Amino acid sequence: MHRFFIPDKSFDNDHAAISGDTAHQIIRVLRLKPGDQVVLLDNEGWEYQTVIKSITKDVVTGKILNKVLGTGEPSVKITLYQALIKSDKFEFVLQKGVEIGIHSFVPFVSERCVAKKPSENRIERWRNVIKEAAEQSRRSRLPEISQVISFEEACRQTLEPALILWEEEKTSGLKSALKSITFSKKKEFSVFVGPEGGFTSAEIEIASRYGIVSVGLGDHILRAETAGLAAISAIMYEKGELG
Amino acid sequence: MHRFFIPDKSFDNDHAAISGDTAHQIIRVLRLKPGDQVVLLDNEGWEYQTVIKSITKDVVTGKILNKVLGTGEPSVKITLYQALIKSDKFEFVLQKGVEIGIHSFVPFVSERCVAKKPSENRIERWRNVIKEAAEQSRRSRLPEISQVISFEEACRQTLEPALILWEEEKTSGLKSALKSITFSKKKEFSVFVGPEGGFTSAEIEIASRYGIVSVGLGDHILRAETAGLAAISAIMYEKGELG
Repeated sequence: MHRFFIPDKSFDNDHAAISGDTAHQIIRVLRLKPGDQVVLLDNEGWEYQTVIKSITKDVVTGKILNKVLGTGEPSVKITLYQALIKSDKFEFVLQKGVEIGIHSFVPFVSERCVAKKPSENRIERWRNVIKEAAEQSRRSRLPEISQVISFEEACRQTLEPALILWEEEKTSGLKSALKSITFSKKKEFSVFVGPEGGFTSAEIEIASRYGIVSVGLGDHILRAETAGLAAISAIMYEKGELG
Repeated sequence: MHRFFIPDKSFDNDHAAISGDTAHQIIRVLRLKPGDQVVLLDNEGWEYQTVIKSITKDVVTGKILNKVLGTGEPSVKITLYQALIKSDKFEFVLQKGVEIGIHSFVPFVSERCVAKKPSENRIERWRNVIKEAAEQSRRSRLPEISQVISFEEACRQTLEPALILWEEEKTSGLKSALKSITFSKKKEFSVFVGPEGGFTSAEIEIASRYGIVSVGLGDHILRAETAGLAAISAIMYEKGELG
């Protein structure tokens, strides 16, 4: 069944009025009809089984049949601090990251970033990529993406425990780091992933001052857009979230 | 430094004669010159530090400076049995799979496959995707890709231990399966990943007859092209290959 995140204000008792892009998708792309059912998501964790009652030119009205708490959220809340990388790669990271279960994304600029700072339009597009991936992968909450910040600002705002992937780190690996980390009750966790050219050793030094632990991924040479996803799959696995 | 897999017959004592696509890439794309160095790979695990001596229209001649055993191969040898999926997604799986460390690929057709059977050209293209990814990610051997076979044939030829990812499998998860598997000395391991629509229960039944264990990936709904990579990242991690 198709799933859609819609704004809180679209719900009114046992009815929902869907407009904007989501209405467009229901009416023009999926060509759903009155009588068809969809699942609406309020981004608070609830899922509303809804039957379409009427369709006008640009508004879909639905009647809510029931409401259940969604189960699509991992208990581990991973924030991916991702350096700006080429736009298609960045969108790839967002899409796959949402599927694997990232809680939120923080894009940042570091020394070796070559990708341009994104326009407002671009960030809007990123939000759409996240929304579509979250709907398709049956997430119950929409992962957030923040504004682009500087690397040092990112280090400053992150809470421990946090890891930074560094290809030159030969002494501390992901596995030993994960085994030695005690998760807080909130199960929050941050992972920093660099741009195509990686981090400089000065940046690793800065990160370490903020308590961020640098780890290597073994002998593998992974592209910027693959490293984070491999690491996050491993973290999800380690924390029992991957079956 | 640029790395290239070249055929065994291109080596002659301390010289190598590079022709074909690789010569084209060195001459026209990278515009390397005599005096520049490259690393040549014989796909037997050796890496040859080589200085370019001369360049003609379509042949590059290099002198081998030294020869070392490559270190880019994981000790775990994972074969990914991947159902045919849409072509761009399939190439994505090949590229990322090579980076993460897949040993070989076996494409197969199962009941819910909608992707068309690939032409010879397509398979040639796949080999190129693998070669480029292997060169970039500093692998010392070229992962193989077999011809497309049927699902049952794939089940028949695989050696235990083997897992099949099944989204409807709720009782056996990846983690418990991996913890209970004893790897053979050869450290070979197979993972089956289905097409966009997943496997049928009849197929899981067939797989089970061949000793292939079905596992779920938790509550995550991963796309066909993401599931295998997440699982393989987790396997590499579990086996100490991801740092």
